[in-house]
Amino acid sequence: MAQEEVQNGGPEKVAEVSFTALKPQLMVEAPKAADAVQFYKTAFGAVEAGRTVYPKRKAEQEQPHVLSAQLELAGSTILVSDIADNSTPVKTEGTGCVLCLETEDVEAAIAKAVSAGGVAEGEVTEGDGACCGGRVGKVKDPYGYVWLICSPAKKCGDAEA
Amino acid sequence: MAQEEVQNGGPEKVAEVSFTALKPQLMVEAPKAADAVQFYKTAFGAVEAGRTVYPKRKAEQEQPHVLSAQLELAGSTILVSDIADNSTPVKTEGTGCVLCLETEDVEAAIAKAVSAGGVAEGEVTEGDGACCGGRVGKVKDPYGYVWLICSPAKKCGDAEA
Repeated sequence: MAQEEVQNGGPEKVAEVSFTALKPQLMVEAPKAADAVQFYKTAFGAVEAGRTVYPKRKAEQEQPHVLSAQLELAGSTILVSDIADNSTPVKTEGTGCVLCLETEDVEAAIAKAVSAGGVAEGEVTEGDGACCGGRVGKVKDPYGYVWLICSPAKKCGDAEA
Repeated sequence: MAQEEVQNGGPEKVAEVSFTALKPQLMVEAPKAADAVQFYKTAFGAVEAGRTVYPKRKAEQEQPHVLSAQLELAGSTILVSDIADNSTPVKTEGTGCVLCLETEDVEAAIAKAVSAGGVAEGEVTEGDGACCGGRVGKVKDPYGYVWLICSPAKKCGDAEA
């Protein structure tokens, strides 16, 4: 057994485990990941830090599918990946994961995302729907993901329950 | 028009917008959010930073639903929220969002998550499936979300395409 596999005590006992990063990975129907990356750059100002692609296999394939594009956004990293119909490496059955983006200027952020091709859903509301209170608006991107654009006004636990 | 609404140029032009935080929000079928929070603490060592709850409305309701619980994990924040069947504030139609957790000890992390009630899916594989290469394993949590437990071995863009 290699040394690095036992350094934290091995799998026999429940070891202390530390995590160095959490990155939401957005699966996009192939070959739209490259478009999605461009959308997140335009809509949210995301900065691409790197991209790996699948080896090009088919002659008719215009561009290789994106294995993983790494985007820096709001101090976090998100990954965007092409997923082909016939490959189902992951399938989330959860009720739904949305991405909450905090900003001081909710209206301007929504306007920018909409001008990039997102669709605003509903009105900007005060607080009690999501995130941690404050003002919240909703934008669905062209790839089906819902982004909550919200003000960082309140912290969890401060609000009266 | 209030001063704070025009400080970044207003919605007429595409303004510079900055985001201060990105927080994945996991929607959980009510009233399981409290259980989900406990799972993420036990499985991944998440630390709860705050919680807001809905006002208790029904006599038969054992505990108030969680509007938003804020968890610190791997330097990021995730939100966990109860979502009732009859309320559909958000619905993601994306191909699927998974959460990629990086750690130096993939096996120990998976073992710990499984001992907390997660289900390991498939074997730990080398690289070319997700994240940024390196070793990757998969755990589905009891609430339907898929977590990729992966080594931080390679950076995007370093891998040969």
